[in-house]
Amino acid sequence: MTVKPDWIAVDWGTSNLRAWAMAGASVLTTARSDEGMGRLNPEDFEPALLRLIGDWLGTGSVRIVACGMVGSRQGWAEAPYQTTPCHPHADAPIKPLVIDERLDVRLLRGVKQDKPADVMRGEETQIGGFLAAHPDFGGVLCLPGTHTKWVHVSAGEIVSFRTFMSGEIFALMATQSVLRHGIAAEGWDEDAFVGGLQDAVSKPEALAAQFFSLRAEGLLHGLSPVAARSRLSGLVIGAELAASKPYWLGQPVALIGAHRLCTANAAALKVQGLEAQIASGDAMTLAGLAAAHIQMTEDA
Amino acid sequence: MTVKPDWIAVDWGTSNLRAWAMAGASVLTTARSDEGMGRLNPEDFEPALLRLIGDWLGTGSVRIVACGMVGSRQGWAEAPYQTTPCHPHADAPIKPLVIDERLDVRLLRGVKQDKPADVMRGEETQIGGFLAAHPDFGGVLCLPGTHTKWVHVSAGEIVSFRTFMSGEIFALMATQSVLRHGIAAEGWDEDAFVGGLQDAVSKPEALAAQFFSLRAEGLLHGLSPVAARSRLSGLVIGAELAASKPYWLGQPVALIGAHRLCTANAAALKVQGLEAQIASGDAMTLAGLAAAHIQMTEDA
Repeated sequence: MTVKPDWIAVDWGTSNLRAWAMAGASVLTTARSDEGMGRLNPEDFEPALLRLIGDWLGTGSVRIVACGMVGSRQGWAEAPYQTTPCHPHADAPIKPLVIDERLDVRLLRGVKQDKPADVMRGEETQIGGFLAAHPDFGGVLCLPGTHTKWVHVSAGEIVSFRTFMSGEIFALMATQSVLRHGIAAEGWDEDAFVGGLQDAVSKPEALAAQFFSLRAEGLLHGLSPVAARSRLSGLVIGAELAASKPYWLGQPVALIGAHRLCTANAAALKVQGLEAQIASGDAMTLAGLAAAHIQMTEDA
Repeated sequence: MTVKPDWIAVDWGTSNLRAWAMAGASVLTTARSDEGMGRLNPEDFEPALLRLIGDWLGTGSVRIVACGMVGSRQGWAEAPYQTTPCHPHADAPIKPLVIDERLDVRLLRGVKQDKPADVMRGEETQIGGFLAAHPDFGGVLCLPGTHTKWVHVSAGEIVSFRTFMSGEIFALMATQSVLRHGIAAEGWDEDAFVGGLQDAVSKPEALAAQFFSLRAEGLLHGLSPVAARSRLSGLVIGAELAASKPYWLGQPVALIGAHRLCTANAAALKVQGLEAQIASGDAMTLAGLAAAHIQMTEDA
């Protein structure tokens, strides 16, 4: 089978490279590799892309719309940030220099906020995808992950946002700290999660002590590694919910991201009395790339 | 020179082994090695100790008073915890089995608290040393380190305590997280420290967001790696001071530990309007081992 895409969508992060061969809004096929930005020097990006999608190219030029760390200072070419408040893709993308003239590459820009200083790169595309599907949405988007984003959206624009290192703190505590001896790699204990969540929501300032209690509870009271993992997750999310309350209180909230992370965060918000909708992170990335592609076509 | 100690003091932690040849309260000589508990199986402890202090032994038996992780479940032999409220060394130490009968080893016990669950092992000896020098002290001791302890002391007893993983969080954030690219390994910026401290004291729940701001401030506003390091330290200590306020507010406070950590914490407390005294951690360890030695002699 020969694939003949009329454009190609690319999500190029620090660790992974994913591509979709597209016909309009339809996916013809997909491909992925582990040649993420973190492993590549600037001159390595074009060969890495050709290795992945070379078979999809014919003789003519194809537009390739890419988001993520590929557009960072350490990426293929820097796609400077837009500044809040802004539409997710208000400014034109950046075209890196290429040798193979069939590649018409467009690197989407990230978004920055001056005060409090904050940045996103990749999430703006998921937000663009969500807003393409819900153009009248006004409220708050939460994109849970290594660096969770809380984003205030109004009239199609990113008004303000705040990044929490919750996912990275969880991972470092679970795998690199003294707690690692008592934290399971898998498994879930809902009661332990909710207990940690409520303790952190009511005393978020005590997080560093609540962490150590996981070790002491294991030594003294036999806290199981699965319960410890779930409680650690509840503590981290609870502290984040306490701090992000000015964002979500009384607002419509949608979660965008990996299913497991979204359901954990939705459960946490539900304990706070809030029903959040959930949207798939992968689907929103592709929808955002498609929305950017349509906009470029209209702007051309 | 032949050293003839009448007893030997030993601080045996996870990473290091230190010994003092003692004549009463006087130090004859010292020795140290990197054969910490973390590298040793139970049968390795006696040979490791003999390698370090074998030259100090004569023909008779010598008492060796040891504190730290050597008495943990993964150590030479488990010295069970005492339970708060308690004198730092109320219960008799544990004698591990030895082959060389010149070694009269006594492993000091740690201290546990049932609720909130907490443990210490080694710090109780520093507290005992401080109380030996200040028998009438009533107030709060802070032992900053990888796992900082806040300890309420009254009438010569440890009444209650709480452990904060502040030092470990600082180290993981500075060297293992995405922030590592923008954090200096050395250097100090007092203004950045105080700024981070005050931001965290007033919004301790936002720590995970304040952490990410260090990266964004570096990318957008050129925050220097030395300022980022100092601000990170201020944030971590500030959140801890906010959470430990019920301990220190209106209390006499003494800091026990490494000089640099104690001065940073004393500066942080001073911003909160509190003057803390400082005691050397090494000196308090030795004083605590000496106090335990004297008590054993009296009890015998």
